[in-house]
Amino acid sequence: MEINILKKVLSANDAVAETTRELFSENKVFAVNLMGSPGSGKTTLIEKTIEIMKDKFSVGVIEGDIFSTLDAERISKLNIPIAQINTGPFGGDCHLEAGWVKEAALTLELSKLDLIFIENVGNLVCPAEFDTGADKNVVVLSLPEGEDKPIKYPLMFRTSEVMLINKLDLLKVLKVDITHLLKNAEKVNPALSIFQVSAATGDGFDLWNEWLIKEMGKKRDKKSQIFFKT
Amino acid sequence: MEINILKKVLSANDAVAETTRELFSENKVFAVNLMGSPGSGKTTLIEKTIEIMKDKFSVGVIEGDIFSTLDAERISKLNIPIAQINTGPFGGDCHLEAGWVKEAALTLELSKLDLIFIENVGNLVCPAEFDTGADKNVVVLSLPEGEDKPIKYPLMFRTSEVMLINKLDLLKVLKVDITHLLKNAEKVNPALSIFQVSAATGDGFDLWNEWLIKEMGKKRDKKSQIFFKT
Repeated sequence: MEINILKKVLSANDAVAETTRELFSENKVFAVNLMGSPGSGKTTLIEKTIEIMKDKFSVGVIEGDIFSTLDAERISKLNIPIAQINTGPFGGDCHLEAGWVKEAALTLELSKLDLIFIENVGNLVCPAEFDTGADKNVVVLSLPEGEDKPIKYPLMFRTSEVMLINKLDLLKVLKVDITHLLKNAEKVNPALSIFQVSAATGDGFDLWNEWLIKEMGKKRDKKSQIFFKT
Repeated sequence: MEINILKKVLSANDAVAETTRELFSENKVFAVNLMGSPGSGKTTLIEKTIEIMKDKFSVGVIEGDIFSTLDAERISKLNIPIAQINTGPFGGDCHLEAGWVKEAALTLELSKLDLIFIENVGNLVCPAEFDTGADKNVVVLSLPEGEDKPIKYPLMFRTSEVMLINKLDLLKVLKVDITHLLKNAEKVNPALSIFQVSAATGDGFDLWNEWLIKEMGKKRDKKSQIFFKT
């Protein structure tokens, strides 16, 4: 008899992911799993989003890194609730698992939050294979990475509902064909919502923030309905 | 009794890696394992290096990707021997293993080659954990990825003997502090040789090519000595 170990591991993670998602729902917090290559600008994107939103919404962050607390230290300057997961002790894993996210989330006062960013380990491969328990997956692709990435790393772009094309301010100095990039993304996942932004300048953040606010609203409404039913 | 599975897997790969390295040595070909994030410029770097070297040296390429043959198609325009490994069928692995590299190498006429580039899967994490059987590990870090990467992904920079800082042509438009990057790299691996290059313009390739030529020479000499002894 052949035993498919990979399947079993993923299923165990999937089960925990469901309970993690329930935890977020019970607390009416909208959880976004932010994935992307090292240096695609995930941390800067979180910083800029919080900077714009912090007067109206309570935002928390779960930082995933293999080693170091560099990103958490950057985010902590914004005076928001933050939890750090280092996968180093777990063997230097290249992704976050739902159990670690849940444990980190439980250290935050979830009921006071509207939105939580889970910054995954910088990687276009492994994080896409593990459900973190977030409500939505968002992939950040920076322009310097080139047009071909959706074709070369299709799972990442298939498991994401949103793609943020970051570092748009570099468009004038790069030989990147953005129409070609959009076509590649559409080939892999025609349902992908795409926002073109620059986390450095804040350009394009109006549509991205609008999406976040709409999704936060859905989460609150859904929760109200659940309460109404019970 | 506790069984350490990870250790066993790595040891199996290490054993194959030794036979892969022997295969390269028997054929006096110097093998470079090129690693780096998606979009760090590995393929462009290989293209530019071959362009400069192809009149004097015979170069082959082993291309590692999860899916697609996009990079192999680009390299094949240079009319050099090339083999493609797609890890998709092996579960979408985020790294190359020595057995796959050996199998790919055996499809090339190794005895006619001086240098072989193994382009690993775009990833700053997993490839560093697996010996491919190459003679040297080289990590490509592009400037837009930022100064903190050696600290956040230390294993990659510890297992590499050379770091190529790529996309130097973007220095004037980026807020990247190159001195800080060099300090971070030194903290993690003081023995790292560092070359600053632009694969787009060819800047800085003189020192990088000099290093390659020196290492190719060593490989040939070592082989001669082995012949002499027997």
